[in-house]
Amino acid sequence: MAKTNKGRFFEDYKVGDVIKHAVPRTVSGGERALYHALYPARHAVYSSDQFAASVGLPKSPLEDLLAFHVVFGKTVPDVSLNAVANLGYAEGRWLTPVFEGDTLRSESEVIGVKQNSNGKSGVVYVRTRGLNQNDEVVMEYVRWVMVRKGNLDAPAPETQIPDLAKVIDAGDLVIPEGLDFTGYDFDLAGEAHRWGDYEVGEKIDHVDGVTVEEAEHMIATRLWQNTAKVHFDTTARPDGSRLIYGGHVISMARALSFNGLANAQMIVGLNGGAHANPCLSGTTIRAWSEVLDKAETSAPGVGAIRLRLVATSGGAPFDLKGEDGKYKPEVLLDLDYWALMPV
Amino acid sequence: MAKTNKGRFFEDYKVGDVIKHAVPRTVSGGERALYHALYPARHAVYSSDQFAASVGLPKSPLEDLLAFHVVFGKTVPDVSLNAVANLGYAEGRWLTPVFEGDTLRSESEVIGVKQNSNGKSGVVYVRTRGLNQNDEVVMEYVRWVMVRKGNLDAPAPETQIPDLAKVIDAGDLVIPEGLDFTGYDFDLAGEAHRWGDYEVGEKIDHVDGVTVEEAEHMIATRLWQNTAKVHFDTTARPDGSRLIYGGHVISMARALSFNGLANAQMIVGLNGGAHANPCLSGTTIRAWSEVLDKAETSAPGVGAIRLRLVATSGGAPFDLKGEDGKYKPEVLLDLDYWALMPV
Amino acid sequence: MAKTNKGRFFEDYKVGDVIKHAVPRTVSGGERALYHALYPARHAVYSSDQFAASVGLPKSPLEDLLAFHVVFGKTVPDVSLNAVANLGYAEGRWLTPVFEGDTLRSESEVIGVKQNSNGKSGVVYVRTRGLNQNDEVVMEYVRWVMVRKGNLDAPAPETQIPDLAKVIDAGDLVIPEGLDFTGYDFDLAGEAHRWGDYEVGEKIDHVDGVTVEEAEHMIATRLWQNTAKVHFDTTARPDGSRLIYGGHVISMARALSFNGLANAQMIVGLNGGAHANPCLSGTTIRAWSEVLDKAETSAPGVGAIRLRLVATSGGAPFDLKGEDGKYKPEVLLDLDYWALMPV
Repeated sequence: MAKTNKGRFFEDYKVGDVIKHAVPRTVSGGERALYHALYPARHAVYSSDQFAASVGLPKSPLEDLLAFHVVFGKTVPDVSLNAVANLGYAEGRWLTPVFEGDTLRSESEVIGVKQNSNGKSGVVYVRTRGLNQNDEVVMEYVRWVMVRKGNLDAPAPETQIPDLAKVIDAGDLVIPEGLDFTGYDFDLAGEAHRWGDYEVGEKIDHVDGVTVEEAEHMIATRLWQNTAKVHFDTTARPDGSRLIYGGHVISMARALSFNGLANAQMIVGLNGGAHANPCLSGTTIRAWSEVLDKAETSAPGVGAIRLRLVATSGGAPFDLKGEDGKYKPEVLLDLDYWALMPV
Repeated sequence: MAKTNKGRFFEDYKVGDVIKHAVPRTVSGGERALYHALYPARHAVYSSDQFAASVGLPKSPLEDLLAFHVVFGKTVPDVSLNAVANLGYAEGRWLTPVFEGDTLRSESEVIGVKQNSNGKSGVVYVRTRGLNQNDEVVMEYVRWVMVRKGNLDAPAPETQIPDLAKVIDAGDLVIPEGLDFTGYDFDLAGEAHRWGDYEVGEKIDHVDGVTVEEAEHMIATRLWQNTAKVHFDTTARPDGSRLIYGGHVISMARALSFNGLANAQMIVGLNGGAHANPCLSGTTIRAWSEVLDKAETSAPGVGAIRLRLVATSGGAPFDLKGEDGKYKPEVLLDLDYWALMPV
Repeated sequence: MAKTNKGRFFEDYKVGDVIKHAVPRTVSGGERALYHALYPARHAVYSSDQFAASVGLPKSPLEDLLAFHVVFGKTVPDVSLNAVANLGYAEGRWLTPVFEGDTLRSESEVIGVKQNSNGKSGVVYVRTRGLNQNDEVVMEYVRWVMVRKGNLDAPAPETQIPDLAKVIDAGDLVIPEGLDFTGYDFDLAGEAHRWGDYEVGEKIDHVDGVTVEEAEHMIATRLWQNTAKVHFDTTARPDGSRLIYGGHVISMARALSFNGLANAQMIVGLNGGAHANPCLSGTTIRAWSEVLDKAETSAPGVGAIRLRLVATSGGAPFDLKGEDGKYKPEVLLDLDYWALMPV
């Protein structure tokens, strides 16, 4: 009896199946410190218990993207071990902040399948939920991946493509309980710009760059218990390179965006995202943002801002796609998210 | 008066001497997170407080090998600073789980000495104990090393070689208090295979590989406060390479063995081990296991399994020694240990 | 309206201004573990809660230099983003130990300005204070940097150079409340040498070396939320190298000094320091110390020792300056500090 996990193939996914992912994880100040050691993260809500208390939270939560990575990592052995490509994200929402001492687990429901015309692979859509020790959903998102078939003779399933929102309606964003930005300290947060200072269409070059190293992205990716071979094993890809986990690029770009968006404190929605080009060690990651939308919220002093966050390996800022409509080769990431800012 | 520690030489060890090692260490969630960031460790008991509680433990302990590394690291300045080779381990037992907030210290009793026929070095046997802040022994093991003489004119001591068990009797293994695997959640643990599914003689290729980097092994080795020069200083060895701490290879191989042995949760015995060949940065570490024995225990739902864990730098799995009886050059580690599994 | 921080230029500093730095930071066991993973730090007071309690402290504080780095890192965006050079330190004192759970913030008062004769830059002197969540000053120090002018037409300010002590008087050192070395355990601390064993003028070669890697210094520097481009971005300097944060060298040298100064437990004063030459990845850092002075203190069993700590990239120990009075090219750091030892 074979003991090792070969991963699931396309024909192993049935719409309606719920996969309970291993391994639950208790997070602590260790994960917090490592997050701040691996990314130049400085958003004050996630850095200081006192600052978090001043905006109505019980204490400083762990970074929203840290929660995402922990939840996501658990899905890899069941969802993307045989994936050819990570195609997209949608309907991501952060529902409950994660604090030190919380234990996270993940489960995914298969919500769509579509075999490719080549008969060798197909697209699988899953809605993943991360839950804490109180069975509260801390975050959820839809992801779709292209997965190889293990048995080419397996019959094609009935195509089912879920109806996914292009953008989460601002009214569906969940504001953390108690959040109140009316007493927000802009000095301690690092910038004076408030929600009202940003205009839809405005673009911000975040200026700074970070050259990434093999040890760093592996340390990060292991911490999220993401086991995909391509990130760790130089024999897994023909050219001997290790592919950097796309989430590492997301966190790096988000952290770099502090410079110009220091007050876009909490991420509450993930509308979509594309890992436009692979990122390898030695790349100097830069980032720019575009304000896509703004919305009021019901929480005191809290506005929502919808941002495009683009990570690049160089080139001119604000240069996204070529005349052919394809991403420029230096674009690593094109992410669309909602954050909360003081109005 | 010279202030720096030159380390002990062969003639400085007397059978019966007890060496109280510096420096005690309080461990926290920081060590836990770093362990999971440095090794792809996913055993559920060590990842989740809730999972640990579901098997009768007060909360998630720190990895057994983390405890080993902390205890071992303290012995380096007193035992192996002038060691030529780390020759073997025996009679290792984990006696009390280590939790966040515990403070560990180590002491070693010299239990054997044998001068080599060349008169320039000798073998020293020590039994090391790690103790926590309540003076409970958290683990113990015997190690023997070859140590240079400082004064070649020092007389050879009477040869004393301790009588060491080749294998720890299963009845001598200590099961953590309260451990109960009757309600074990195989979904959350990551694999369905239970103790009864493994056969003596069965071999498992753990499939995955990790290419290791200088920064990683130095970060790990420093965290255990292991000060051996060869791990850190490129001027310490003639070829300018840094030798990776053998314990780094042990932890990497153990973590890789999750894939196929996810339910071999707790390490309770170390029967022996050989660092067959040195490991350097850039090596892609792989692992395979062989089931050497199985035994029942008195704890509810808990079986003991004796495993050979082999780490390699490549080559075919299950290929251990050549016709000359020597380890193949790609074998890095040959470890023999007892673990606890749900029956 | 430009959203990104361009940093302050020479003409933006006015004597008497107080700059409240972003971002406050709550520290935990994660920062402690990372500090011990990045530097071979072993001083027992900072390693063990029980050892700390045995010398009268409530529990093990975080390393004094960790507190320094956290406080310093916050000043970078406001003080040294456009700095040409970090010229010196003076009057540094540690006033209150930092414990896990504390939240640190920083503020700096401009205490001096002097435009350079070239009209293109000037020297700015600031006194920085780090405060905890109870508004206690945990440490303070003076630093002066050379900063570019942004507007070359800005008029030169009136020159004001603060009157700074060359050396902190031993009577002005602040001993942590309750500190008592009368029951000090030299075995657990790692060395037998007490304050009385050191002579003014004595020099100690700390023997060990550590070859540093890009990933390590970036992980450290990010953890302190120090954002200076030159440490992270290979496109920031003409030769493509990343300059290692000077504080990384300080911590590495201090940790290496354990071997010979294991009982120089707590750093309480920083008299001065020069980053004599830049340090790059691949350098093997070594350290030596010289006893500059000794003083009694009012605390039981506690003596103060003034030490020169020199970090080098090789060369002979104790070789500091050439005949021209300039630092030898292999000298990286020349630091002058006060520490506390058991008498």
